[in-house]
Formats: sequence, structure tokens, C-alpha cells
Amino acid sequence: MNNPLSKEEIQALLNNSPFISFMNLKVESLDPDTDTLVMRMPMRPEFERRAGTGQWHGGPIASLIDTVGDYAVVMKVGAGVPTVNFRTDYLRPGINTDLIATAKVRRAGRSIAVVDIDVHDENGKLLAVGRGTYVPQAG
Amino acid sequence: MNNPLSKEEIQALLNNSPFISFMNLKVESLDPDTDTLVMRMPMRPEFERRAGTGQWHGGPIASLIDTVGDYAVVMKVGAGVPTVNFRTDYLRPGINTDLIATAKVRRAGRSIAVVDIDVHDENGKLLAVGRGTYVPQAG
Amino acid sequence: MNNPLSKEEIQALLNNSPFISFMNLKVESLDPDTDTLVMRMPMRPEFERRAGTGQWHGGPIASLIDTVGDYAVVMKVGAGVPTVNFRTDYLRPGINTDLIATAKVRRAGRSIAVVDIDVHDENGKLLAVGRGTYVPQAG
Amino acid sequence: MNNPLSKEEIQALLNNSPFISFMNLKVESLDPDTDTLVMRMPMRPEFERRAGTGQWHGGPIASLIDTVGDYAVVMKVGAGVPTVNFRTDYLRPGINTDLIATAKVRRAGRSIAVVDIDVHDENGKLLAVGRGTYVPQAG
Repeated sequence: MNNPLSKEEIQALLNNSPFISFMNLKVESLDPDTDTLVMRMPMRPEFERRAGTGQWHGGPIASLIDTVGDYAVVMKVGAGVPTVNFRTDYLRPGINTDLIATAKVRRAGRSIAVVDIDVHDENGKLLAVGRGTYVPQAG
Repeated sequence: MNNPLSKEEIQALLNNSPFISFMNLKVESLDPDTDTLVMRMPMRPEFERRAGTGQWHGGPIASLIDTVGDYAVVMKVGAGVPTVNFRTDYLRPGINTDLIATAKVRRAGRSIAVVDIDVHDENGKLLAVGRGTYVPQAG
Repeated sequence: MNNPLSKEEIQALLNNSPFISFMNLKVESLDPDTDTLVMRMPMRPEFERRAGTGQWHGGPIASLIDTVGDYAVVMKVGAGVPTVNFRTDYLRPGINTDLIATAKVRRAGRSIAVVDIDVHDENGKLLAVGRGTYVPQAG
Repeated sequence: MNNPLSKEEIQALLNNSPFISFMNLKVESLDPDTDTLVMRMPMRPEFERRAGTGQWHGGPIASLIDTVGDYAVVMKVGAGVPTVNFRTDYLRPGINTDLIATAKVRRAGRSIAVVDIDVHDENGKLLAVGRGTYVPQAG
């Protein structure tokens, strides 16, 4: 069992990826005791569904879900973990708001980790839910 | 039953969305008789997983899956269709290649449409598979 | 908005279905304020994975997930709701134990409801998680 | 790489499981060259959604999807493979009909296999689609 990564270590890994840097993901908080990791993603014009509406396209929301779920496992195991698959359910449109994603590891087995990810807007409204499967040891 | 949209009409709708424009999606071909729609997405530096590797981050692949699945239903019904949920399975890394996504509507009911989406690289290797559910009539 | 169904009303609906009767589902508790419904399913020999092992086959676990998720929405809307799709993740084998499934409605929109379902063994160990989408108004 | 299992070897494994025996699954055909496996499941009164309607409850359909997907991988690797997760989409009700499930392995990697499963009625109508992830080497 590795020591869990710190907020700064995770942020450094995020910044190392061009796509995640483009998403501007920031680690808000983490709790290794409950296997929970929270990130924030600000809107940018390229992520709009329709120009000028301030509404998020679903793609960046799904990308956020996949990434935060992945790093909740990375936090635990200290190394990169490929995504096997993930599911995204869109519940409400997100408009003129940052996205706050909370990932919680439900099970971290030797070969598979399962993570739940909730995406809220700045007012705490639930916009989307995700569930992902990751491989702690690359294969 | 509406007339299915043409390649040009779908491309015009795509270009109307900032995020889809950023993804640079191009309609390659479509076949309304088999409810099949094919799009191509070129790599851009912002979509890399690690700088300089030419490897796609999973987020744009999932975004592609969601979008092509959605427009396969749009093609059929002639209007916007919100995504209910979708699943993405990553099968192989995509490196130094455009992505070609083929969406096939498996069932278009009155209230729900189900679409399968396969993502190949330029050599025809299968990189990822998706399955999405869409609401033909917004609700 | 309908009045939520009572424990007895839900149990009567369950007993009305041959397959659910065969599963022997019992409503343990419900909380309409939090949109939560809990059911219990006892082992029976037909549900074993291997004879004499006491281990649950995955099929009845998935069936339990689908059904409890469905009835969490039924509880809310007071009528039958077809399943659109659902996902089952198996986390640990279930051996010599009743299954306790807790369904929580995450979002009940006009056209789609999304429900999370956790399956525990009698000792509170998490065996499987499910996520389902249901159509409150049949279509 | 193992030799793929024969029809008789797969049937013998199926018969060895109480739940699969209860489902009465029969191997219809298989094609190791295309990684395809077809099974048939007859209706039985315990599997009805409502008594006397002849309509399948969704639970046995999901169980069929999980099992046929699993054995398509078993066929390839020659040993038991736990299900990681699977998704079931119900497309149409199945009434007064056997179910015919066709599983096709989309990718069999070292650590993960992904399988698509289509469920038809006796008239070739598509009733449900599934997608499952399995672990070729138990873990």
C-alpha cells in the first residue's frame, strides 16, 4: 500500500497533461480516509454547446467525470491508471457555472477499481453522475 | 416521420456549436437507410494525453462518441436530441491518427433512441466503443 | 405529484409478478422524503453460481438491482415504469447471505428518472452497485 | 493461446451451474474465428413479468446477457472469467418467445475483455442489447 498522493502532487500530474491543462482542472480538496477527491473546472468559450448561451456541452462534462474518477484511484495507488469504461448520465443542463466534480472510490481491488463521480454546479445542484472502472495495474 | 437530414445540413448544425467546432468534426458519410452516420475528428495539441506523444486523451474520444451518437438520431428526427446517458469502453490507445466514429441507431422508439458508436483509427483498428441513449422528443 | 406508495402497496405490486415472487423480494423500509427504498432477497438453491457453494450467481444480483431501482421510481410516481437501461458492477462475491438492496432516486425528471442501487450482504459489505434509467411515463 | 472450447464443453460448463441450469441455456452455435457465441433460453412461468401474459421480466434478459457474454470469453480463454460490469438496454418487450442471444467479443486484452450481446426473439426482432466487461485472468 502506497502513501496517498497530496493535493500538490495530483495538481502537478494534472498540469502535465495537455488536455487536462486545457480543461483547467483544479484540485479543490481530497480526503484519502474516505477515498474522495474534488476538482473544479471553469467554463471556457470552447466548451459551450451553443455560442453565447453559457451552457456546457456534454463532452467536457464526460471528460471531467472520467478524469476525476481516474485521479481518485491515482491518489490511492500513486501511479497512472487506465480507464476501462465509464458511464455518464446527464441530469440537468449546466449554465453559467463552474463544475465541481466529487469522486469517491467505491471499491479498489487488486485488478479493478470502481469510482462514483457526482458533478454539481456552483449552487450545489446535481448536473450529472458518472461511474467508472479503472485498472490500478496497467494491463 | 421527417425526411432525414443531408450531410450538409448535419455539418451546418455541427459548425453551429463552439465545442463541436473546436473538435473539428467532419461528416464523412451517412446512410439513412441503415441509420448510420460516420464522422472524422483530427488530432489537435490540446487533445493529447501527454505532450508530444500524439496519444489521444480519453475525454475527446468520449466526447466524439456522445456527439456522433447524438447526431445519428438528429439525422433521423431532424431536431436536437438530448443525451440521457452513454457508456464508453476504451479498447486500445489512439496514437498519431485521426479518429473515425461510426454511429448506428439500434432502436429509435417514440421516447428513447439507442445508438452504438465504434471508434477506429485511420488503419481500421478499433480503439473504443460507445453506447448512448437519447431522447428524440426533448423532455 | 402523486402521493408516494406505502410499504404494503409496493409489496402487493411485487407479489403480483411471477419473477419477482420467485426472487422473494421483501420491502424492508422506505423513505419517500429521501426517495430511498430498501429490499431484501434471500438465497435459494436456484440462484447459486456453483452447487453447494452458497455463492450468488450474478444474474439474480442484476435482476435485484433493476427491480429495486424500478420500484424506487414506482414509489414516487405511483405507476409502472419501464427500465430504459441499467449498469451493474460486481465488487465482491456474495456467499451464504441474504442480499440487501438500497435504491436512491438521484433525479426524477418528467421523462427520465435515474436511480443508484447499492447491494450489501448481511454484514454490511458492499457486493455490487447499479445505476438505472427509467421512464416515469411509459413510452 | 488456448484452443477454443467446443459447443459440448461449453454446454457442460453451463449445466454445472444451478442458476444457468434453471435458465435452461442451450448453446445454439459458436464461431471461434469470429469470437461469436449464440445461446437460446426458453420461457418458463417463473420468468414472466405478469402472470399469464407470456412477457419476459427484464431480470432474466439481463441474466442471459451477462452469461452469454461471459461464456464468449470463456470459449476463447478456456476458463472462468468474472464479470466486471455490464450494461443492459431494453428495446422492446419480449412476448411468447424463446430468447436468442448472440455474443461477440469486441476486444480480448490481457487484463480485460469487452463483449457485445444482442438479444432477439424467435422472429429476429431485436429485444435488448448488452455490453459487458470481463476479466480473463481472475483477480
